[in-house]
Amino acid sequence: MKLPSPIFWQKSSASERENALARPALADSASVKKAVSLILSEVRSEGDVAICRLTEKFDQVRLTHLKLEQNQITEIASTTPANVKTAIDLAYDNIHRFHAAQFPKDIKIETQPGVLCEQKHSALEKVGLYIPGGTAPLPSTVLMLGVSAQVAGCDRKILCTPPSSEGRIAAEILYAAQKCGITEVFMCGGAQAIAGMAYGTQSIPKVDKIFGPGNSFVTEAKQQVSQQAFGAAIDMPAGPSEVLVLADKHANQAFVAADLLSQAEHGSDSQAILVCDDGEWTLSVQAEINKQLAMLNRKSIAEKAMNNSRFIVTDDIEQAIDVTNLYAAEHLIIQTKDAEHIGNKVKNAGSIFVGPYSPESAGDYASGTNHVLPTYGFARNYSSLGLLDFMRRYTVQTISQQGLVNISSAIVNLAMAEGLDAHANAVSIRLKQDANNV
Amino acid sequence: MKLPSPIFWQKSSASERENALARPALADSASVKKAVSLILSEVRSEGDVAICRLTEKFDQVRLTHLKLEQNQITEIASTTPANVKTAIDLAYDNIHRFHAAQFPKDIKIETQPGVLCEQKHSALEKVGLYIPGGTAPLPSTVLMLGVSAQVAGCDRKILCTPPSSEGRIAAEILYAAQKCGITEVFMCGGAQAIAGMAYGTQSIPKVDKIFGPGNSFVTEAKQQVSQQAFGAAIDMPAGPSEVLVLADKHANQAFVAADLLSQAEHGSDSQAILVCDDGEWTLSVQAEINKQLAMLNRKSIAEKAMNNSRFIVTDDIEQAIDVTNLYAAEHLIIQTKDAEHIGNKVKNAGSIFVGPYSPESAGDYASGTNHVLPTYGFARNYSSLGLLDFMRRYTVQTISQQGLVNISSAIVNLAMAEGLDAHANAVSIRLKQDANNV
Repeated sequence: MKLPSPIFWQKSSASERENALARPALADSASVKKAVSLILSEVRSEGDVAICRLTEKFDQVRLTHLKLEQNQITEIASTTPANVKTAIDLAYDNIHRFHAAQFPKDIKIETQPGVLCEQKHSALEKVGLYIPGGTAPLPSTVLMLGVSAQVAGCDRKILCTPPSSEGRIAAEILYAAQKCGITEVFMCGGAQAIAGMAYGTQSIPKVDKIFGPGNSFVTEAKQQVSQQAFGAAIDMPAGPSEVLVLADKHANQAFVAADLLSQAEHGSDSQAILVCDDGEWTLSVQAEINKQLAMLNRKSIAEKAMNNSRFIVTDDIEQAIDVTNLYAAEHLIIQTKDAEHIGNKVKNAGSIFVGPYSPESAGDYASGTNHVLPTYGFARNYSSLGLLDFMRRYTVQTISQQGLVNISSAIVNLAMAEGLDAHANAVSIRLKQDANNV
Repeated sequence: MKLPSPIFWQKSSASERENALARPALADSASVKKAVSLILSEVRSEGDVAICRLTEKFDQVRLTHLKLEQNQITEIASTTPANVKTAIDLAYDNIHRFHAAQFPKDIKIETQPGVLCEQKHSALEKVGLYIPGGTAPLPSTVLMLGVSAQVAGCDRKILCTPPSSEGRIAAEILYAAQKCGITEVFMCGGAQAIAGMAYGTQSIPKVDKIFGPGNSFVTEAKQQVSQQAFGAAIDMPAGPSEVLVLADKHANQAFVAADLLSQAEHGSDSQAILVCDDGEWTLSVQAEINKQLAMLNRKSIAEKAMNNSRFIVTDDIEQAIDVTNLYAAEHLIIQTKDAEHIGNKVKNAGSIFVGPYSPESAGDYASGTNHVLPTYGFARNYSSLGLLDFMRRYTVQTISQQGLVNISSAIVNLAMAEGLDAHANAVSIRLKQDANNV
């Protein structure tokens, strides 16, 4: 295919630079918004009946029940191919190790004598894990969400995933769910699954927070329920997946081409960007992309995505780093000399892959990091999914009589400055009482 | 006033219980939504011009510039009354200590040999701090937001607050801002301030995330910009402020009454709830409330709020704890025998105040904890504001050649199970290359 021509950063105008780093425009979603809003209200008022009706409509299967029985989970999970079981086992172990290392410590300090302040953590009680369906099962997403919820210690982990037209859930999904201690699995997908978890139905428990990726209906449903006081919190806003590879001529063209293509095969709206300080070398990567592209199963998807790819050539590596920070990529791969050093200069990214042997697919599956990441520029203001997203923080203060005396005039003076005398009174009444007792 | 009659929990039906813990209904906000949406689009297209026009309309003042000069900040701040300065100094120190203690540690582990995974933290670059105006200045909110941003190390801290009709900002606000190292102060309030910070204007920088409380227009504006990819992230959803006091007959009625009233004076939609295992004692708190109410400056506001207060009587303290967890209060005050022990049994709350000398106003101003907290039941799934809200987490993986070999079959098998052969190829091409080089 004819890949987009390299963009020479130094020679580009401000608007050309902006265009070079622009995300693909999102389709105007007025119709999706309306359709989702209708699905949500149907599920909210009718519960399981609406979900079964919508499942028949969208997934072409008539279900008599939504929940998988425990023995069904066990039975179907056991049919997972041995090599996939082994792969899930290894990925599970690494993801578990990295997320267990994130377990937060409570904080307890006296800010001044007699004023004890604590920050405590508790796991969210009920979490909803959404696993998309489609052409292939996604056991890796089950691990990313399920291990986190398991390590956090969430009481109930509700998994929703659309059934096949035969009314089945893939063995790999259930094997991964079992590893994560997930016992509540519902055959339910799309906006109706998000509604079921946000509001609760006869069979699906209402959850506190909903996690996981999905199509435009799922994404819109998550946004809508997160705006409703009777809805649920969500993990983060979503957008098309993306990679930026920051390379220099010391990198292996075949590795870089493979990394760009592994992003491109995700979907035709995926964005793959190469930033390099060498124009000649950039062209040789393009040749390598065409060579590899021909062999891919998902060639047509990858080709569409590569149409929107960008090849940015900078004057030097410092400029390449600037461009990288500007873009704030979901996935950032650094294949340069001194990659670790360069990595320390980049902050705005969801997950960074350092050096020639750190392909994005390692993090997608098995290195241990979470593959649920902020896309679409949100890496500037949102975090990669981590253990803390499955927990909440709250504070506790325990103040002694003397402690209150020590901070009383600060409280009273600030309360009076803010015109809140009942706030001041809550302190002075306590001091007065003490004076009376002396 | 005639306070609401006690509700006996054990004798209440399921729907009576639900009503007892129901939050005040939020006004139907279709008109607010529309008005805010219009303001946002005006500011987005016209910038400062729109903000000045809206400021004239809503704040009755015609401004020639939005930004306060550094010498103005210094000059006005210096006029803060000495007792308020001292109060702000003490509060600043305590808040600083507690938030500095929250500074996160980066994590670095080998999930298996050659697979190094890191979780790193960086401060958000540009944060927007919104400080409401109204009848009195709120220096305490400047401290809660400003200290956090300062400790996190945010590059730029943009503060917006509405000017008085004389075009001035209160000295206390500016004194607190100075302490927090805030140099960019804009005379700008309401939805137009949120728009200014979310989109950026000629004078206001575009920020990554917007923090702070506000009226229904500000809240709606924050929600709307948080849904826009070109907008900004926000701290948390908002609702009317609330307190739940969990008490037994060992508590001091006057203290409990004062705490309920200090919540009630916030606004007529504030909710104050007493949960106690003793009906007689509950009535004596009501008598004390009426006594104290008579003396308050904001009596009429507090009276309206107390009309919607709830007095719940439980059979025993265990049931009182259950009710408390169900309500998930923004502020929870525990005044019982063994208050610390009881406190450990409660998880769903924004901030907990333990024992007779820990009034809510201590946390509102000076104990050191943050007073920006999840209300309206969001304490089930959102955290109290903390240092981490001013930072982002991201992950880094650095995999050695042998490390990649170790996890390669897991990646390849999972990628193939998910139908993503370009993902598999990104690994196999690296292994093949190595084999060729041997």
